[in-house]
Amino acid sequence: MNLGLIGLGKMGGNMRERIRRAGHTVIGYDRNPELADVASLAELVEKLDGPRVVWIMVPAGAATQSTIDELAELLSPGDIVVDGGNSRWTDDEKHAAELAARGIGFVDAGVSGGVWGLQNGYALMVGGESAHIAKVQPVFDALKPEGDAGFVHAGKAGAGHFAKMVHNGIEYAMMQAYAEGWELLEAVHSVTDVREVFRSWQEGTVIRSWLLDLAVNALDGDEHLTHLRGYAADSGEGRWTIEAAIDNAVPLPAITASLFARFSSRQDDSPQMKMIAALRNQFGGHAVEGSGRGE
Amino acid sequence: MNLGLIGLGKMGGNMRERIRRAGHTVIGYDRNPELADVASLAELVEKLDGPRVVWIMVPAGAATQSTIDELAELLSPGDIVVDGGNSRWTDDEKHAAELAARGIGFVDAGVSGGVWGLQNGYALMVGGESAHIAKVQPVFDALKPEGDAGFVHAGKAGAGHFAKMVHNGIEYAMMQAYAEGWELLEAVHSVTDVREVFRSWQEGTVIRSWLLDLAVNALDGDEHLTHLRGYAADSGEGRWTIEAAIDNAVPLPAITASLFARFSSRQDDSPQMKMIAALRNQFGGHAVEGSGRGE
Amino acid sequence: MNLGLIGLGKMGGNMRERIRRAGHTVIGYDRNPELADVASLAELVEKLDGPRVVWIMVPAGAATQSTIDELAELLSPGDIVVDGGNSRWTDDEKHAAELAARGIGFVDAGVSGGVWGLQNGYALMVGGESAHIAKVQPVFDALKPEGDAGFVHAGKAGAGHFAKMVHNGIEYAMMQAYAEGWELLEAVHSVTDVREVFRSWQEGTVIRSWLLDLAVNALDGDEHLTHLRGYAADSGEGRWTIEAAIDNAVPLPAITASLFARFSSRQDDSPQMKMIAALRNQFGGHAVEGSGRGE
Amino acid sequence: MNLGLIGLGKMGGNMRERIRRAGHTVIGYDRNPELADVASLAELVEKLDGPRVVWIMVPAGAATQSTIDELAELLSPGDIVVDGGNSRWTDDEKHAAELAARGIGFVDAGVSGGVWGLQNGYALMVGGESAHIAKVQPVFDALKPEGDAGFVHAGKAGAGHFAKMVHNGIEYAMMQAYAEGWELLEAVHSVTDVREVFRSWQEGTVIRSWLLDLAVNALDGDEHLTHLRGYAADSGEGRWTIEAAIDNAVPLPAITASLFARFSSRQDDSPQMKMIAALRNQFGGHAVEGSGRGE
Repeated sequence: MNLGLIGLGKMGGNMRERIRRAGHTVIGYDRNPELADVASLAELVEKLDGPRVVWIMVPAGAATQSTIDELAELLSPGDIVVDGGNSRWTDDEKHAAELAARGIGFVDAGVSGGVWGLQNGYALMVGGESAHIAKVQPVFDALKPEGDAGFVHAGKAGAGHFAKMVHNGIEYAMMQAYAEGWELLEAVHSVTDVREVFRSWQEGTVIRSWLLDLAVNALDGDEHLTHLRGYAADSGEGRWTIEAAIDNAVPLPAITASLFARFSSRQDDSPQMKMIAALRNQFGGHAVEGSGRGE
Repeated sequence: MNLGLIGLGKMGGNMRERIRRAGHTVIGYDRNPELADVASLAELVEKLDGPRVVWIMVPAGAATQSTIDELAELLSPGDIVVDGGNSRWTDDEKHAAELAARGIGFVDAGVSGGVWGLQNGYALMVGGESAHIAKVQPVFDALKPEGDAGFVHAGKAGAGHFAKMVHNGIEYAMMQAYAEGWELLEAVHSVTDVREVFRSWQEGTVIRSWLLDLAVNALDGDEHLTHLRGYAADSGEGRWTIEAAIDNAVPLPAITASLFARFSSRQDDSPQMKMIAALRNQFGGHAVEGSGRGE
Repeated sequence: MNLGLIGLGKMGGNMRERIRRAGHTVIGYDRNPELADVASLAELVEKLDGPRVVWIMVPAGAATQSTIDELAELLSPGDIVVDGGNSRWTDDEKHAAELAARGIGFVDAGVSGGVWGLQNGYALMVGGESAHIAKVQPVFDALKPEGDAGFVHAGKAGAGHFAKMVHNGIEYAMMQAYAEGWELLEAVHSVTDVREVFRSWQEGTVIRSWLLDLAVNALDGDEHLTHLRGYAADSGEGRWTIEAAIDNAVPLPAITASLFARFSSRQDDSPQMKMIAALRNQFGGHAVEGSGRGE
Repeated sequence: MNLGLIGLGKMGGNMRERIRRAGHTVIGYDRNPELADVASLAELVEKLDGPRVVWIMVPAGAATQSTIDELAELLSPGDIVVDGGNSRWTDDEKHAAELAARGIGFVDAGVSGGVWGLQNGYALMVGGESAHIAKVQPVFDALKPEGDAGFVHAGKAGAGHFAKMVHNGIEYAMMQAYAEGWELLEAVHSVTDVREVFRSWQEGTVIRSWLLDLAVNALDGDEHLTHLRGYAADSGEGRWTIEAAIDNAVPLPAITASLFARFSSRQDDSPQMKMIAALRNQFGGHAVEGSGRGE
């Protein structure tokens, strides 16, 4: 089949390559003309056979919205738009309705795989109507990893991004789990080779995983991580996971703790800990960095 | 009555003063001869009328243990030892048994009040046998604040320090509560006068408290706490509270979060966040401080 | 002055009474005609002298929105609307803009005090323009507690409800702090009189507060709280506090733990703990409620 | 080589089988004579060639201590005791010293693998002196999984159990991560097939792991886990992990949240939530299960 692909950054560019390797035709557009196959969305739409499938791979929010708005004008009934970016699931419901009003189908696709996806395949979680998904299935099959897993039709429009969002929430807490364990092992004197402890866990343990393999890779390059700062960014999905949990009265203590640890890591000096220091100072005559007698 | 008081630091010295103001005789001993009324524990014991009451106010752990060991040799059956320091409640059970073997009574006393205690009185939580406590009651009455509250016979030996330990655990979470609220208010632009918000809460709100009053005092001196570092020490009681909770399978999420926030505040660079950064780097080709596309 | 007051439930009714006691005229409207002084908003507006001040005290969300919509049609430039309900601060910004387009002023007022407010006064946190607030000040003065505190102009439109929201977030964590401490004290055998420990804390301690006084009241009525279920509802403010924190990358571990504890309390059987049980069963051949050998 | 193995329960019995399959001789003792090869520890020691290696696989605490005490009397200088049970690492330091005083070597071995170990091998984390470990290496090689990983000499005496303990702490938070994600997915209506979402994650995602495979197995047997109660036991290692963290001032928010979630799951009615309900009742006149106006 042929596919229009909008957004040819690191993720989009690699996905184009993987889809092409599977024998499909990809017409790519990017704001950067050096990456693009066509000069405009209009040209992209014109070059596709109908019913067209156009995959959007641009930043969530305003960029995705304006791309969908423009495609709504250019596409025809029966065409399909796939949003493969990191959109919030609530946006998907809106986008599906906007496009449905013009007879255009919508599929949201959460994509996992990062820089490893070109080689190993991208895990895909998709939401929308079965008929729309069926039209994109050859592309999904090209992108997904070999084997039975790696693809799911998770539910209605938004369900794909929702499932990917939860995936990322789980990922936050798993990363935090290994990180906490690593810090504790590094802190005690009786354990003399923390890197080899991590490596040993790669076989036969309950906690073996791909993330553990990555941790061992990282420690092989920098045994005590001395070249890194203890600073961690977060993307929207972790935040949205907690907001979704709050909306549904679901307690997420481990995932939330993991996000908050990242927030704290980005503060040079914690305002809330200044208040703790101020209070200690008030009631105990504590020296600001002193110890706590008499509380 | 007369009382032997061992340990005349900031807390012990002020307590001596408050007991004397109530008309009792205090014979004080301290390793620092400039603070002491007598030159040795032996002299202190000799100068007290029997049955003697000796109040220990020295650091928990080795210093308290060696003082109790020495008193065990010097005192007589019917005498009473009061441990008013910050001992762990499990030590009290041991000390009570050791002294009981010689016919010496033991009372543990958790003392709250800090630098404000001399003027306002010290809240006292005591553990031990009623007959032993009765002999110390005049001193407790001298130390406690006016009013009906401020003193409790909490239970058996150890119960006084246990109650004081839980008091401190609650204190950690209350301080954290105000600190979190303060940081959030400072973070938003629509709230233009955070200090006055705190001041307004001192009357009529659900969250009015003595700690809130202290927070307002602190903000009056330094409105945005710019002269403090976000660094908070912790004393043993917070840690012991969590250990006691774990022993009893009691979940303490807020108190524990408060202790962990203090731990984090003392790390220049968080080891666990280095691991998070390392993992992000591995799977996403993230620049170490970059944003999170493609997770 | 005279005031229109919409919503005469428990809160609104008591507030009307307190404002009247201060010598002001209150014209009240409620959907329940038995509570109301007038039969409609139109009649209420007609009976007020201009420039009018109308205070809304109805549930947040749709009820508040429709009341503001209706008032926008009925009021005149120079009039003032006060939203004293529990609206989300983001709604305030919208309401202020909608009313400003018609020359009508808007003040948001977070109100604390509950059933104790009639007697003790209501703490007020207000947001909006100083000129608008000045016109309502006599009513604020009537409602607020005696003393210097209990009222603050926190900032722009929305700042009043934001400050009240943070107040409630702090309240969640303070309540959780006492609750955790109480459970731990009840769990150990050495502490034989937990209620008296709580009572003793009311004087001279770091953790004395109005909430502690309420806890003692509750324990006086039911020493071990045997007549209550461990079930706690939550209102919107706690959730919004965490959402605001996430938007601002502020870590709120204690407040969030407190909200999640309430969520968990309302689950008859925890879905996430079913998954934990299922996993333990899988990897260890654990009996579902058995102990954990061989993990 | 030949090995004495004490404790032939589910773990010990399977380990004996795996060691025998590798061609070694195992002389097993158990209090249950139906499982045992010999009638007493004395007979077991007598039947082994020197220098002897005796592996203890009995419950941590008193049972392990009494076994070590008895072996200390029976063994000779140059013999080696391996503790493969779930002992606390602090016990190992004591045991190593006790045995060293008699010239007997000591190795602590944390063993992971559960019911899957017989077939897949057991991951081993060991602590002690290299010379002692070398004598046991043929048994370690028999037990460990194929491949390079699955075995580590982690450090001094105690380091093996310490590493295993941290492994279990990490495991708690990983299980909690999946459990939280599962509950959130089950809570929303747009995701219609949560089991298939979990299955899809097994390939190409960041969160693929052995625990995820087990979760899919569990969901295949009981899609919504309706046959399980949300009740999770915990073994000592999770608790000890947190205590070790507190001793080292290492924040472990995700692992601790995971343990506390298990504690809560075992409470029919939460005492702390009774206190929250009581306080809400006091300040707001809230119906005990009602909603929260007027806080």
